[in-house]
Amino acid sequence: MAAATPRTIDLNADVGESFGPWAMGADAELIPLVTSVNVACGAHAGDPSTILRTCELAVRHRVGIGAHPGYPDLAGFGRRDLDLTPDELRSTLVVQVGAVVAAARVAGVEIRHVKPHGAMYNRAARDPAMAATIAGAVHDLSPAFVLVGLAGSASVAAGREIGLRVAEEGFADRRYEGDGSLRSRRLDGALLGPAEAAGQAVSIARDGVVTAADGSRVAVRADTICIHGDGPDAVAVARAVRSALAEAGIRVAPLGDDFGNG
Amino acid sequence: MAAATPRTIDLNADVGESFGPWAMGADAELIPLVTSVNVACGAHAGDPSTILRTCELAVRHRVGIGAHPGYPDLAGFGRRDLDLTPDELRSTLVVQVGAVVAAARVAGVEIRHVKPHGAMYNRAARDPAMAATIAGAVHDLSPAFVLVGLAGSASVAAGREIGLRVAEEGFADRRYEGDGSLRSRRLDGALLGPAEAAGQAVSIARDGVVTAADGSRVAVRADTICIHGDGPDAVAVARAVRSALAEAGIRVAPLGDDFGNG
Amino acid sequence: MAAATPRTIDLNADVGESFGPWAMGADAELIPLVTSVNVACGAHAGDPSTILRTCELAVRHRVGIGAHPGYPDLAGFGRRDLDLTPDELRSTLVVQVGAVVAAARVAGVEIRHVKPHGAMYNRAARDPAMAATIAGAVHDLSPAFVLVGLAGSASVAAGREIGLRVAEEGFADRRYEGDGSLRSRRLDGALLGPAEAAGQAVSIARDGVVTAADGSRVAVRADTICIHGDGPDAVAVARAVRSALAEAGIRVAPLGDDFGNG
Amino acid sequence: MAAATPRTIDLNADVGESFGPWAMGADAELIPLVTSVNVACGAHAGDPSTILRTCELAVRHRVGIGAHPGYPDLAGFGRRDLDLTPDELRSTLVVQVGAVVAAARVAGVEIRHVKPHGAMYNRAARDPAMAATIAGAVHDLSPAFVLVGLAGSASVAAGREIGLRVAEEGFADRRYEGDGSLRSRRLDGALLGPAEAAGQAVSIARDGVVTAADGSRVAVRADTICIHGDGPDAVAVARAVRSALAEAGIRVAPLGDDFGNG
Repeated sequence: MAAATPRTIDLNADVGESFGPWAMGADAELIPLVTSVNVACGAHAGDPSTILRTCELAVRHRVGIGAHPGYPDLAGFGRRDLDLTPDELRSTLVVQVGAVVAAARVAGVEIRHVKPHGAMYNRAARDPAMAATIAGAVHDLSPAFVLVGLAGSASVAAGREIGLRVAEEGFADRRYEGDGSLRSRRLDGALLGPAEAAGQAVSIARDGVVTAADGSRVAVRADTICIHGDGPDAVAVARAVRSALAEAGIRVAPLGDDFGNG
Repeated sequence: MAAATPRTIDLNADVGESFGPWAMGADAELIPLVTSVNVACGAHAGDPSTILRTCELAVRHRVGIGAHPGYPDLAGFGRRDLDLTPDELRSTLVVQVGAVVAAARVAGVEIRHVKPHGAMYNRAARDPAMAATIAGAVHDLSPAFVLVGLAGSASVAAGREIGLRVAEEGFADRRYEGDGSLRSRRLDGALLGPAEAAGQAVSIARDGVVTAADGSRVAVRADTICIHGDGPDAVAVARAVRSALAEAGIRVAPLGDDFGNG
Repeated sequence: MAAATPRTIDLNADVGESFGPWAMGADAELIPLVTSVNVACGAHAGDPSTILRTCELAVRHRVGIGAHPGYPDLAGFGRRDLDLTPDELRSTLVVQVGAVVAAARVAGVEIRHVKPHGAMYNRAARDPAMAATIAGAVHDLSPAFVLVGLAGSASVAAGREIGLRVAEEGFADRRYEGDGSLRSRRLDGALLGPAEAAGQAVSIARDGVVTAADGSRVAVRADTICIHGDGPDAVAVARAVRSALAEAGIRVAPLGDDFGNG
Repeated sequence: MAAATPRTIDLNADVGESFGPWAMGADAELIPLVTSVNVACGAHAGDPSTILRTCELAVRHRVGIGAHPGYPDLAGFGRRDLDLTPDELRSTLVVQVGAVVAAARVAGVEIRHVKPHGAMYNRAARDPAMAATIAGAVHDLSPAFVLVGLAGSASVAAGREIGLRVAEEGFADRRYEGDGSLRSRRLDGALLGPAEAAGQAVSIARDGVVTAADGSRVAVRADTICIHGDGPDAVAVARAVRSALAEAGIRVAPLGDDFGNG
């Protein structure tokens, strides 16, 4: 699934992030606008009812389902580094992904991909040993799963190394820096509105490049583009991105479909 | 899997009940002595590493693996009633069983059975609506799963009603009352030592009866006999039961084997 | 603190019910409109940062602070019955209230009252043994605390019995039934909008009566009136109630002030 | 409370580390042998009933009570680094210590000290910013609390800086390295048996030195000596240390007693 000049791309969103009485995200509106969803597994977000209901919603809208495991830290939403041993990391991935596999099956489908969340995603992108532990756990769960990771990162390298299909991920609604990293949310201009996000999505999907904060052109070869579900603009961004991709003649399809990019 | 005059019976134990730094049970010694194990799923007991390690241990000893879901109440060990809605009950069963399904698969096998734990087990035994919710969730997870429930209870009736294979459960190391219920742990004589437990196991397996606390004979037609793993005598009880069954010419085999009793 | 013809009443709201990344309620707008707040203690809602920040906010607006302990069941928001032993109930009350006592003290004040939450509140209102356990724990924490409970219930009776000051609670934004109970949220007309809630609050504060769903007049002698913080109308209800009480010449003051009603 | 040539020293132990059905430590035997106990606060260990029962036990044996807060990570027992913000660290300290303050008060006493646990203790020992956050939180809780930290570390420096009394801690049952750090538990000879621990305790209390793994003499000027409660030898170590101190004419007394060392 190399990212060379894709004509088809996946649009993904993190969903199922409510917990008990606390709602998060606009899943009901967002899910119809994307092609793949990453379902929180109950450790950093997502209670059992939310997991099952989210899978049912995804099935109803025929989008691809993946598991979105994170650090077991509900209060920190999986965004705080937690120093797990490789054995603990592997084990939590197995049971978290297993939870969503079961919910998806009860909802009528098999999951297609696994995308780590938050601090786990970020650390795996730059830590080859951790990336290898994750890739190994995903492969043991099923060699057919697609592993989603930051484009060009240690995560996707580890996935390829072990023989998994990987999906490199770009971001529509986040500004890139000149070195290819994402601009920190604490800096001005880190978040893009609907129009800019739509332009960046087309640029990634068609040309494999983005214009960075410093004006330079940076290569972002992505198989899937993430729409963040938790911003106030999430639905407007998703609509704008979806329209712009259609106008540019770029087809969208779920991860795991054999869409001829790799 | 009706319990009529079995010559083959399963011996099961609740395992994987450690959590983080806190050990519980003598799984390493107990697992080789039984034929099926019920693995705690992380909600009332069992962290991810324990779940995975326990499944690996069970595979090594070639015992059948089942999931042992309970109320999501770690501090109460799933022994306190928690008033879940049917939707919440169904959802927690799906994700809990899914966790053990995934761990068992990574360890190399498929799980065979599901046995609810603690307060969930006890309430389902007498509450047909709750029993139906549980049976429905297990059936949706896989119609091939065996549902384990108290012999003669609403749990097994609901399982049969929906078309699941069921295993009726008797207890080797607990005294029965004249009405077929288990004698409360708060009363004298509730727990049997190794010799008495062995005798009761043979009596259940061969004759389908036990001698109750009041001296009366009570029918207990069981497909599987539970050895409690958390008592100080657990290993001694398991050894005595296993020997006594062998001497009585009763074969033991895991749940889910087609052992011709039903 | 008997409710005889009060000219002064407290307005209370449940606050601090956010958890980690999940916001709940409009605390910043609601707190200035009430005279007492009940701060969730981390067991059914409220993470440590929320607890501390909420106490600081309450101090800034000079409203009285109380602890709002609930069942340790985050996913269920303390609204599901959980069968605690008296020892477990007492212990969880001690540590939950202790958490808010400490946060309030760091914010510069002492807490004044304790109001159980959700299923714990409802069950204590009709279960004298449980009410006595709660009253005992609160008294042991401090005999100076005011115990808040449903007007006319077992909760307040148990508080008086042990020598605590009690505050009987009425509801502005919930319809009463003819028997004095609250109309179930599942029935039409259970929730009152701002205008009706304001009228009911004045009626409770000035006359000690409400007009029930069946048109009958029911006595509700309350020392404090609850404004639910989690409805979409919460702030509008609070504004309307506050204005209406002012127009009716009824003074508002925090629980624990010696306002001469009892 | 400087450690200059103390003739009186405190012996402390971490207690109350059971959780729900899972027991840890031999608190009932260990508590009578020490002079201060550090009670786990429910975040890394300790459920509410355990917290309250442990405080009652400590009161019965007239030992000093302190709070033993840790990272909110039960499965990891507070031994895994968790990247809290200063605000999150401060808040969790406030509510955790508050829980034990309340339990101790219900048991009849005030707590005297605060000793962070596990990864929080270790990181604070070498991270001045984190140490300052902890010292600030403890001071805000009560300027009368004694802050316990690793002898000679950033923790105790931060405590002194803010005006707290501090207690520098040495270890009886752990081998020191030549640089004054504790020998890793993963290396041979890291743990001392009763006789060696007793010798090291006397050496610390009387002479302010220990013999390190490499044979060198290292200064350890301590106000309190920790006996680990979770080893199999814990009680034997405590007995041996207590006897040896008595034979050497060194008095033991709880933290917070004004015992003239500083």
